[in-house]
Amino acid sequence: MDDPPAESGPADAVLAVNARFYEAFEAADLDAMSALWEHAGDVVCTHPGWPTLRGWAQVSSSWFAIFRNPQRLQVILTSAAVTVEGDAAWVSVDENLLDGGAGQTVSALNVFRRRDGAWRMVAHHGSPVLRR
Amino acid sequence: MDDPPAESGPADAVLAVNARFYEAFEAADLDAMSALWEHAGDVVCTHPGWPTLRGWAQVSSSWFAIFRNPQRLQVILTSAAVTVEGDAAWVSVDENLLDGGAGQTVSALNVFRRRDGAWRMVAHHGSPVLRR
Repeated sequence: MDDPPAESGPADAVLAVNARFYEAFEAADLDAMSALWEHAGDVVCTHPGWPTLRGWAQVSSSWFAIFRNPQRLQVILTSAAVTVEGDAAWVSVDENLLDGGAGQTVSALNVFRRRDGAWRMVAHHGSPVLRR
Repeated sequence: MDDPPAESGPADAVLAVNARFYEAFEAADLDAMSALWEHAGDVVCTHPGWPTLRGWAQVSSSWFAIFRNPQRLQVILTSAAVTVEGDAAWVSVDENLLDGGAGQTVSALNVFRRRDGAWRMVAHHGSPVLRR
């Protein structure tokens, strides 16, 4: 077996899951969204302008409700920065949302945890950028 | 030497630094704020409604500017939940801001990293709760 390529380190593995999160969001794919979150009681999710949702039951319900909205948003990610610390990692990224009309930028902080070799999302916090 | 009390585990150490963050904020104490942040290039800070600030230089400048405002806010913390994963930890908490008039709730996600035995803040993300 060849060694894995150098770019397949933990930071790239985290960024790959981070990318899957936005792909699942754009596609409104509940199965893909569910697969990349850890189904734990301590996960948290703050949608822009929302109070924080705590635990997988609340978080999954929110994605179910959001994905029932027929509007689809395209997300262009900029300024993604990843930090890995052992089995934890976090990504700071700007989400530039395009809905065909005026754009909106959301600042996001996403936290991931590694269990049994797999990185999964444990926190998503998005907040509207109201001034620049 | 007696064993340390059971309550002095890493989760409590993280919550203590988290509490110091809000004490420094309420007191507009730049030295205290500076002492509890890691002065690293990968720290990030998102004030409510702001774009994300990256690196200690930008983050410290923002606290300097914010603390020049003579208005002081009282912060009542609710729903604080801490997760520790090795040398990383994060706290999800609701900041209930009181300024003498109408209150405002900010959802916050704070990330901490342990270096040389000391927990320091490496990410703060606060977002306005616009609906309940």
